[in-house]
Amino acid sequence: MSEVSLREIVAFIGGTFSGKDDVAIAGVAPLSEATERHISFLANPKYASQLAFSRAAAILVSNDLAGESERWIRVADPYFAMATIVSRWFAERPAPRGISALASISETAKLGANVSVGPFTSIGDDVVIGDYAIIYPNVTIEAGARIGEKTIVYPQVSIYYGSIVGRRCILHSGVVVGADGYGFATHGGRHHKIPQVGIVRIEDDVEIGAGTTIDRAALGETVIGEGTKIDNLVQIGHNVKVGKHCLLVSQVGIAGSTELGDYVVAAGQVGVAGHLKIGKGAQLAAKSAVLDDVADGVKVMGNPAIPFRDFARREVALKRMTRRGTGREDQKK
Amino acid sequence: MSEVSLREIVAFIGGTFSGKDDVAIAGVAPLSEATERHISFLANPKYASQLAFSRAAAILVSNDLAGESERWIRVADPYFAMATIVSRWFAERPAPRGISALASISETAKLGANVSVGPFTSIGDDVVIGDYAIIYPNVTIEAGARIGEKTIVYPQVSIYYGSIVGRRCILHSGVVVGADGYGFATHGGRHHKIPQVGIVRIEDDVEIGAGTTIDRAALGETVIGEGTKIDNLVQIGHNVKVGKHCLLVSQVGIAGSTELGDYVVAAGQVGVAGHLKIGKGAQLAAKSAVLDDVADGVKVMGNPAIPFRDFARREVALKRMTRRGTGREDQKK
Amino acid sequence: MSEVSLREIVAFIGGTFSGKDDVAIAGVAPLSEATERHISFLANPKYASQLAFSRAAAILVSNDLAGESERWIRVADPYFAMATIVSRWFAERPAPRGISALASISETAKLGANVSVGPFTSIGDDVVIGDYAIIYPNVTIEAGARIGEKTIVYPQVSIYYGSIVGRRCILHSGVVVGADGYGFATHGGRHHKIPQVGIVRIEDDVEIGAGTTIDRAALGETVIGEGTKIDNLVQIGHNVKVGKHCLLVSQVGIAGSTELGDYVVAAGQVGVAGHLKIGKGAQLAAKSAVLDDVADGVKVMGNPAIPFRDFARREVALKRMTRRGTGREDQKK
Repeated sequence: MSEVSLREIVAFIGGTFSGKDDVAIAGVAPLSEATERHISFLANPKYASQLAFSRAAAILVSNDLAGESERWIRVADPYFAMATIVSRWFAERPAPRGISALASISETAKLGANVSVGPFTSIGDDVVIGDYAIIYPNVTIEAGARIGEKTIVYPQVSIYYGSIVGRRCILHSGVVVGADGYGFATHGGRHHKIPQVGIVRIEDDVEIGAGTTIDRAALGETVIGEGTKIDNLVQIGHNVKVGKHCLLVSQVGIAGSTELGDYVVAAGQVGVAGHLKIGKGAQLAAKSAVLDDVADGVKVMGNPAIPFRDFARREVALKRMTRRGTGREDQKK
Repeated sequence: MSEVSLREIVAFIGGTFSGKDDVAIAGVAPLSEATERHISFLANPKYASQLAFSRAAAILVSNDLAGESERWIRVADPYFAMATIVSRWFAERPAPRGISALASISETAKLGANVSVGPFTSIGDDVVIGDYAIIYPNVTIEAGARIGEKTIVYPQVSIYYGSIVGRRCILHSGVVVGADGYGFATHGGRHHKIPQVGIVRIEDDVEIGAGTTIDRAALGETVIGEGTKIDNLVQIGHNVKVGKHCLLVSQVGIAGSTELGDYVVAAGQVGVAGHLKIGKGAQLAAKSAVLDDVADGVKVMGNPAIPFRDFARREVALKRMTRRGTGREDQKK
Repeated sequence: MSEVSLREIVAFIGGTFSGKDDVAIAGVAPLSEATERHISFLANPKYASQLAFSRAAAILVSNDLAGESERWIRVADPYFAMATIVSRWFAERPAPRGISALASISETAKLGANVSVGPFTSIGDDVVIGDYAIIYPNVTIEAGARIGEKTIVYPQVSIYYGSIVGRRCILHSGVVVGADGYGFATHGGRHHKIPQVGIVRIEDDVEIGAGTTIDRAALGETVIGEGTKIDNLVQIGHNVKVGKHCLLVSQVGIAGSTELGDYVVAAGQVGVAGHLKIGKGAQLAAKSAVLDDVADGVKVMGNPAIPFRDFARREVALKRMTRRGTGREDQKK
């Protein structure tokens, strides 16, 4: 995290700026926290009143923002421009370098070039780890698992045997990949375990949030499609197939064997029952209980979840009814 | 995972089969993924159309399935037969063998015969571990805890001091047993901690899913009854008593001091308030908010949860009302 | 956990007691589990019928409880008195002592006086740990993090780089502090990661339950205010500001950039959308979906959450309507 000149930043993002640009910038900060050594940004018009009071050396604003200021850098998308600047100069973070002498690595594991492994990490037989992967401390990777190149595995992650993790994935602390699915057959009053001998396969460019659990298939595979981003404390049941480029927000639960098409968005705390098909681009509103298939592109909400239009209509009717009901009660008094 | 002859498999499960049985079988797979070296099964009639297209060497089907095929093995319960076959031949998985030199084990801990302990596992004073138990890497077992024979503890599990875990239990990665219950007394605007000095007692044959947390009692015990199976990311509060052979699906939360009778089923994301009694065999539908006692055998759903019949009636009334309401709005236009 | 005389206990809590007080007490237990060597308490009148049958040597009861008994110790608040007694004599628990030779501690880390660190704990560069802090086994503390004095960090906790944890905090097993917030910009059908380069700052006297995740800010800080107590499996998104002395019960989720005033109570499984302001002392009933700002002191419930009074009114109207609807259906038969 060194300093960069404002001039270099403006040139890099291709913005329009007429102010003083021979200033050393130490980082990016929100409007209210920025100092004269920071660059800031206005992404949400709701915060426009902070523009005048921010101490930032320069502020990324939208090309079409009304008004004028010597401090403004005009760009097409201030939020994305901010992210690009942070990624380019200010996103470095500490990470293990090289293979720790305090790790336990099987002789039959195959580690690619420039792999890093932290202390107290345990890597089992026949594990394969791609080039430039970073495995933090206190991780357990069981036998036969495969980790793609440039993937980052944070501390306290557990990857069960035979799991496959793609390239450029990020697994945050506490993620569990490949624990047994929840499968039992009840006979004579006891629940007998159905062995879970399938695997988990995570494709490239997937990010998985802290504490999220993805169960191995009973048979076959549980799949997380390419480019999908999963938030914290999400539960993915056995044999679920999540499509490509989905967004699963925190505390979502997807029950066994359900299939999500590409670009599905499930907002926070959504629950999806088992053996369903959720169509491509479907949107599941926060806290919905999805108990039936959802067609492509449809937005649902509620418990049980119904199409957004029906939900809104129901809310209106409920409000009217509640007013009516109250009126009658008042008359009785 | 070696090969077995189809003849041996058919004899083992006592099925009816008239086809060619001198075939080497390498495993079990779903209809759509099976090859000529796999056996498959039809448990859900919804997938019957896949029968013809599966490449499986043989297919377990129900005794009463209409039609006929040389590949079919007729059995009473195809799903259970499949599970039996997998358990018998194809469920072997890698596990630690013996006591790792990289584990930290107190001199006062007592380990039974044939216990295995992985690297970077920490076992405290006076811990007792039964014969044939398997403790994976990166587990922490605090002082005075007891683990029954043949119990399996996966990586990254934390078992707090004094916890008791029965025989043949399975604790998946990230499980936390015995953390402090959530108890505070508020005086003078500050929340003072009520010390949590009870324990957790888990009876025999309990399975606990990844990331699930079971809090120690304030005083006395939090109990998980024999044969109960708990899914991932479930929260069990302090002093909760879960009966025998219950099923708690993922992301369920049970608040403090609530008692569940035997054979209670709580579907995904159910919440149960504290100090309640949930009767034997009660069923709590997915995402219910259970705020009152539930009698034996009753099925409830909704937020707040009401008996299933009332919930269904309410849904019908809501649909009718919404239609009515809409009609009026349309007339106004 | 040694023994204490009943006389000493009565004197310590300033209770009124006329019975035999030269008895050795070994601990505190619930009425139904206490033996002659335990002291017990009646906090909830619902359990008064157990008073006669308890074997406890003495029972803490409220000053105004009707009736009389030589075993009763009268106090203002029996529950708080019980907690005080437990804290004073019976709350000792095993913990690491000193710095384990099996920990991995950077040479540039600064550990205060009397810090304890368990085996297989990894402490990164420039970490600062205050006096008397206790770090259990299998913890990972990344570079630059700061832990205040007397703070307790249980096993399997992960603290990402640069996080700040206050004094006298308690972090239970599986807690993740400072993982990346969930931030992506979607361009050309792919979700591009917004670097998360802010931090988490946890103030003094905060307790965080097992498996809870608190994400680092995109820029700036995610803050947990002084004295706030968080239960298990809670998710706090990036840039959230939680006020002082809040109570967040298990499985609550707070989405990004939302601000909670002081003394907010969120009951179990509540979800709060992003960018909201929840006023001081607001109460969010269990399983609410909070989608709008909530004013100071207001109590809301439901999905979507509405003020408590409106929710109650709606429930009454729904019950009436369901009865009406049913009546009509019955007439048709």
